Amino acid sequence: MSKYQENKFYIFNTLTRKKELFQAMNPPHAGLYVCGPTVYGDPHLGHARPAVTFDLLFRYLKHLGYKTRYVRNITDVGHLESDADEGEDKIEKRARLEKLEPMEVVQHYTNSYHNAMNRLNVLPPSIEPRASGHIIEQQMMAQKILDNGYAYEANGSLYFDVLKYHKDHNYGRLSGRVLEDLISNSGKPGVRDEKRNSVDFALWKKADPSHIMRWPSKWGEGFPGWHLECSAMSQKYLGEQFDIHGGGMDLLFPHHECEMAQSVAAGGSDAVRYWMHNNMVTINGQKMGKSLGNFITLDELFSGSHELLESSYSPMTIRFFMLQAHYGSTLDFSNEALAAARKGLIRLMSTLKVLDKLEPGEAGSFRVDQFEEDAFRAMNDDLGTPVLIAHLFDASRFINSAYTGSDSITAPDLEKLRKVFRLFVFDILGIQEEEEDKEIGDLTSDLVNLLLTIRLEVKKKKDFELSDRIREELAGFGIVVKDKKDGFEWEIKD
Amino acid sequence: MSKYQENKFYIFNTLTRKKELFQAMNPPHAGLYVCGPTVYGDPHLGHARPAVTFDLLFRYLKHLGYKTRYVRNITDVGHLESDADEGEDKIEKRARLEKLEPMEVVQHYTNSYHNAMNRLNVLPPSIEPRASGHIIEQQMMAQKILDNGYAYEANGSLYFDVLKYHKDHNYGRLSGRVLEDLISNSGKPGVRDEKRNSVDFALWKKADPSHIMRWPSKWGEGFPGWHLECSAMSQKYLGEQFDIHGGGMDLLFPHHECEMAQSVAAGGSDAVRYWMHNNMVTINGQKMGKSLGNFITLDELFSGSHELLESSYSPMTIRFFMLQAHYGSTLDFSNEALAAARKGLIRLMSTLKVLDKLEPGEAGSFRVDQFEEDAFRAMNDDLGTPVLIAHLFDASRFINSAYTGSDSITAPDLEKLRKVFRLFVFDILGIQEEEEDKEIGDLTSDLVNLLLTIRLEVKKKKDFELSDRIREELAGFGIVVKDKKDGFEWEIKD
Repeated sequence: MSKYQENKFYIFNTLTRKKELFQAMNPPHAGLYVCGPTVYGDPHLGHARPAVTFDLLFRYLKHLGYKTRYVRNITDVGHLESDADEGEDKIEKRARLEKLEPMEVVQHYTNSYHNAMNRLNVLPPSIEPRASGHIIEQQMMAQKILDNGYAYEANGSLYFDVLKYHKDHNYGRLSGRVLEDLISNSGKPGVRDEKRNSVDFALWKKADPSHIMRWPSKWGEGFPGWHLECSAMSQKYLGEQFDIHGGGMDLLFPHHECEMAQSVAAGGSDAVRYWMHNNMVTINGQKMGKSLGNFITLDELFSGSHELLESSYSPMTIRFFMLQAHYGSTLDFSNEALAAARKGLIRLMSTLKVLDKLEPGEAGSFRVDQFEEDAFRAMNDDLGTPVLIAHLFDASRFINSAYTGSDSITAPDLEKLRKVFRLFVFDILGIQEEEEDKEIGDLTSDLVNLLLTIRLEVKKKKDFELSDRIREELAGFGIVVKDKKDGFEWEIKD
Repeated sequence: MSKYQENKFYIFNTLTRKKELFQAMNPPHAGLYVCGPTVYGDPHLGHARPAVTFDLLFRYLKHLGYKTRYVRNITDVGHLESDADEGEDKIEKRARLEKLEPMEVVQHYTNSYHNAMNRLNVLPPSIEPRASGHIIEQQMMAQKILDNGYAYEANGSLYFDVLKYHKDHNYGRLSGRVLEDLISNSGKPGVRDEKRNSVDFALWKKADPSHIMRWPSKWGEGFPGWHLECSAMSQKYLGEQFDIHGGGMDLLFPHHECEMAQSVAAGGSDAVRYWMHNNMVTINGQKMGKSLGNFITLDELFSGSHELLESSYSPMTIRFFMLQAHYGSTLDFSNEALAAARKGLIRLMSTLKVLDKLEPGEAGSFRVDQFEEDAFRAMNDDLGTPVLIAHLFDASRFINSAYTGSDSITAPDLEKLRKVFRLFVFDILGIQEEEEDKEIGDLTSDLVNLLLTIRLEVKKKKDFELSDRIREELAGFGIVVKDKKDGFEWEIKD
């Protein structure tokens, strides 16, 4: 029996508003599609959360034995400034500002995104398709929707006919929006509007003469509508039906609602079995936004170079901070919360070091099998990382007790504990050692130990002046010495 | 006057077989297209050489003040096993072997390529287009060639009519091949061959039923011919005419010859002003090949994990080794040659450290202006890195003499020397400090210095036993102490 058969893995399906047992359509294969970034600016917290959330899912599916094909796209065309098919293309606008060809903008911010994800230890997806690289596939899907009667052409553009679709299906089914409300909120189409109804959305937009990104089509030169890329690319790489579609809650409407409608309109049935949405990020309780001055990029977080930040926060601190909350909850960033996450992470990482040094002994109070079971139960409950991390801290407390001699563990249990602890921290949560942890290299340790040995020696020789001086100099380097009955201990303070 | 006006930069143009003064078509802009990898295997030395060569060119053009748009493609479709339009697609074959979807193979090896390039400090290009992402553009170009009468359709495929083209233009002009020889060497087309002549090449290939990578076209479902992507993508991102096209000598024929023919056939004139080719890599005097057992990937070089390697060679050692030869010469890899390059690189890097510590004094024997002029003259002579590096070593010898007091340099000269030396080593040659160089962090240095200060103190107190012990312990850590009249010096031995 493979691991995914042993583990009943439940995920919260946005479509049904229920936790459901995950059953892959075609085990041992699992297909996962996640909306990636629109690459027109530096990566920020809003990019990190879905990336870390679905990296966790990807890692866990793989651990469960699924051969997982993870597709995460790059939006490099078609995402207009307004979600309502109006305004400039976000990338063309940036290109104009920076006096670059749009694909230079795409390349630059794709590289920044990859670098930041790499630092967050987010695994690269199996396939990372670009919207501009799948124009034909998008045209083919638009044609199908047109053929099936759910789209209409107007002046070289192609629009999805939401009202027509709603007669046969249910527009709003995923996001819970009510079409009538949407219509009354969005007003009637204006005189110059090509849309039959203001809720309709573009499948293909005719390009203005000044628009750079354009391709020929049956309907004239233009570019694809934003929602179409994900439908076309998920179908190409995962099939007409696939297991999981993920993304940020902000994409639920209109983007995912429209994706769902497109798939049904083109193929007759839902493409996605499980829809998963990570919740939003706030900063000191506020929504993040450029106008609010609280727009913090990942590089600014990593380097501490933003006026709201009291210090820099390492990529693993950010990752751990995100994992301490459930992906379905909102997450508020503040210096206090980040500092607490850093402390927790340091505790976990030092437990790993203690675990390496721990010697086996008698049977003690800790049940390793129970710990393993609890940890898996937490993950199987919709990626319950806060509970998992609480179990890791319980184990950590035990490990430290065993190390100081107030508890103990048998050799086979110790071996298993090491394995399970490392599995969850490194493989599943995706935490990795950071430069800071590694900084205290062997040579440095050797040197500090030598200095403190010499200090013991000069102390014995009653040269207290020199002995004190060594202690003070080390304190100046951030090394705190604790004298013990039979020697010394030291640690590096930050 | 901008730098590119001051510097007469000559490059060897493969087309004219002459060194020619580089004159950008549209200064201050410069356009550069380089053939990137076909991503179906791990990156190896054959990938590193063109990447480093054209990274050097990119860096130098930028230094000269050109706003350089550097396009380097990723070939992810259409490259068949045989250059003569036969055999499986290289990527589909690998996908079949690894039981993956072709785009998973593409993603995996694109990531490996990027990682290796990153370690070699090769800057990312401005745009990195993929062949599969430009199917429409390739179809449009094929249609133009067909419209102009230089292609014919046969059974759903489209072929370039080399003989027809040769009547009006000159096929072989770039590579120096003679069409008559090519025809007599390649034999007549077989009975089942769709080509009119065996030298003809595919612009569009009809896909077999089993072929996964396929797109609709006017001529039926199929995929583009290998040569077409570079013509279509260079035109899209650099215009119908652009400055420089680079690539490995192995691509000169048929790939670049066919590219040139396609551009002329589609647009009526040559697209490229300067063709540049880096020469090939051999290993212990032999061509690199899987069957010869001397196929060494970059990761194997970096880690030393190949039986032909006597040690690992750091990315900067590989880069420096390549730069020590002119890109137009063949380059033979051997353990001896790599060890020599490593030594040279260490010399250069330690010169940089000495340069930081050097104190100004009287005027000495070194002419900084002359050194700067010589260094630029070397680069302006078709990227003459071997000569440039020789000048850097001359400067290095002087710097060391000045440091030991047998020569000297004035303050303004020292400032300029620092600037020029760093410019050439870091910015133009693209050498960077490596982990090994950085290993001796500040804390470690502080600790060693503290230990040695204490040693001086205990020596003063005549505690020679302890003083000797400190020295011996440090030697045990690989730290060699040299007593000086007024203190000490130390260094870390490997």
